Amino acid sequence: MATRIGASTIALTSAPRILASAAVVGKKEGEGPLGKAFDAVFEDVTMGEPSWEKAESALQKEAFRLALRKGNCTPEDVQCLFAGDLLDQCTASAFGMRESGVPLLGQYGACSTMAQTLSMAALAVDSGAVELAAAVTSSHFCSAERQFRFPLTYGGQRTPTAQWTATASGCVLVKPMDKGVAVRALTVGRIVDMGITDANNMGAAMAPAAADTIRRYLEDTGTVPSDYDAVFTGDLAYCGSALLKELLARDGITLGDTHFDCGLMLFDRQRQDVHAGGSGCGCAASVLCGHILPKMARGELKNILFIATGALMSVTTSKQGESIPGIAHLLHLTVG
Amino acid sequence: MATRIGASTIALTSAPRILASAAVVGKKEGEGPLGKAFDAVFEDVTMGEPSWEKAESALQKEAFRLALRKGNCTPEDVQCLFAGDLLDQCTASAFGMRESGVPLLGQYGACSTMAQTLSMAALAVDSGAVELAAAVTSSHFCSAERQFRFPLTYGGQRTPTAQWTATASGCVLVKPMDKGVAVRALTVGRIVDMGITDANNMGAAMAPAAADTIRRYLEDTGTVPSDYDAVFTGDLAYCGSALLKELLARDGITLGDTHFDCGLMLFDRQRQDVHAGGSGCGCAASVLCGHILPKMARGELKNILFIATGALMSVTTSKQGESIPGIAHLLHLTVG
Repeated sequence: MATRIGASTIALTSAPRILASAAVVGKKEGEGPLGKAFDAVFEDVTMGEPSWEKAESALQKEAFRLALRKGNCTPEDVQCLFAGDLLDQCTASAFGMRESGVPLLGQYGACSTMAQTLSMAALAVDSGAVELAAAVTSSHFCSAERQFRFPLTYGGQRTPTAQWTATASGCVLVKPMDKGVAVRALTVGRIVDMGITDANNMGAAMAPAAADTIRRYLEDTGTVPSDYDAVFTGDLAYCGSALLKELLARDGITLGDTHFDCGLMLFDRQRQDVHAGGSGCGCAASVLCGHILPKMARGELKNILFIATGALMSVTTSKQGESIPGIAHLLHLTVG
Repeated sequence: MATRIGASTIALTSAPRILASAAVVGKKEGEGPLGKAFDAVFEDVTMGEPSWEKAESALQKEAFRLALRKGNCTPEDVQCLFAGDLLDQCTASAFGMRESGVPLLGQYGACSTMAQTLSMAALAVDSGAVELAAAVTSSHFCSAERQFRFPLTYGGQRTPTAQWTATASGCVLVKPMDKGVAVRALTVGRIVDMGITDANNMGAAMAPAAADTIRRYLEDTGTVPSDYDAVFTGDLAYCGSALLKELLARDGITLGDTHFDCGLMLFDRQRQDVHAGGSGCGCAASVLCGHILPKMARGELKNILFIATGALMSVTTSKQGESIPGIAHLLHLTVG
């Protein structure tokens, strides 16, 4: 049974728990600062498949398989799967989960999708009707470049504000349990569009939405960022993170040394030439599943906020001169 | 609080109710058999906008506005909006709802999205945390043709099995109430892919998924189709409907005279030259919101099943020779 706190935060009174999580990444992500944290690093990012799109589906399938193995479950145990990705018509998820036989609800929140799928899985379990729910998202640098920018072989130049789409997938299993990492509350994001039209500066387009959601959650709960061990955003990267701090500061909210951004954590920005940092549905997903949740399970973090951010444009809307609507969904996770 | 019935059906014990619904359609849909049922018929399907994509967003915005007006609500009253459409990155929804300021969770289930958004809205309200949720979907013939097939000006020939994407949008508001149409139960669909690769025969690709979901629901509840006043599918159209009956008959399940398909209801197939019938996220949505729910509110139907079906492919996956994964989500609605 869920209850509402303040204007727009949902408290999950049964506090559904994370049974297991898994993160799989590509070669570049494996060479990054969190390289050792992931369950699998694929040197061959084709995953042995004939297209980048099929490679992304394979990545998602593998994250789901590993999460099930770590949770000692089978696909038949999963009553509801919330899945999403960046591809047109969310096909990385549809084809990745096609053979699973699991009831599927496709989710689209661009790079915010990991927070959205986990919110939905937690709400479904909290409702009492679902004993085991899964949340999975993915992105692939090569399928995203082809779809949103240029075919790789074109060799297009990247601007300094551009972000690097992560080749990664993360999967979380949620279950009613007495112990473990719990989903305590969530705040659903609303669209904020400040008129940014530069599709190579997603951080700037998403930061106002992150500020809006964080502000609403803090108001609803009467807390401040320093009440939490850490506040993780994803994927604002370099430009968006600076902008978020500035926007919150205007409202007297200080995001201090305990703020981390998944887009800045996944890659070493200077060494790995990713410009402003990482992005993609797989970025926040792999950092959550490979780094944050295991750290919580080990008791190194006990009380955190996870806010994934998305840019809800398409190639068509950008070509039509439209600005980029941003969105951000927030989860409050605790241990104990 | 929800409970599980059988293997995969979710019973919503608080039975969240439909506060209001609205359906808006284009000229051709207005000329169809249900023409008088809709809240608005737009003779000019550009909606005064400079692109078909913006026209679709305008259609969705209008359905949301009219549902709010009929429910005597404001956007501020809506705590959670579940929205979806067929466009790449679900932009008809993102741009249609951009100015609403409502917490948004984008859903993707292709033409099954109306059943998916309504399931999510009902589950959110049933959880106790949300006082008013909305579900909205849309499609537009011209934006869909351009994206999935050919630009209209190309004048491509349509095959006899092809379906006509509806220019339509439907919106439902869900609230905890004592009276009115109630969402009693839902069965989440799983992907069924029988290897159909013809993107001009969606009915055949989706029928096996509809059969799977209906079969699971009937098993879970120990009921038969004749226990219901009507069984509505959408959008299997002519080919898919025949195939669904055949598939269910193999399992000894008879879909009799009380089976209706939204794709066959929206248009007069012969007179309006729509070949196999209607389709699109707006087809099942406008038939549900303009015809089925009002009929239930008037007491003409009291106990029905609504099963919307989707084909989860994209242009890219079809070009890569992939088959079409189908999905179908089911809702049990009652009055009283």
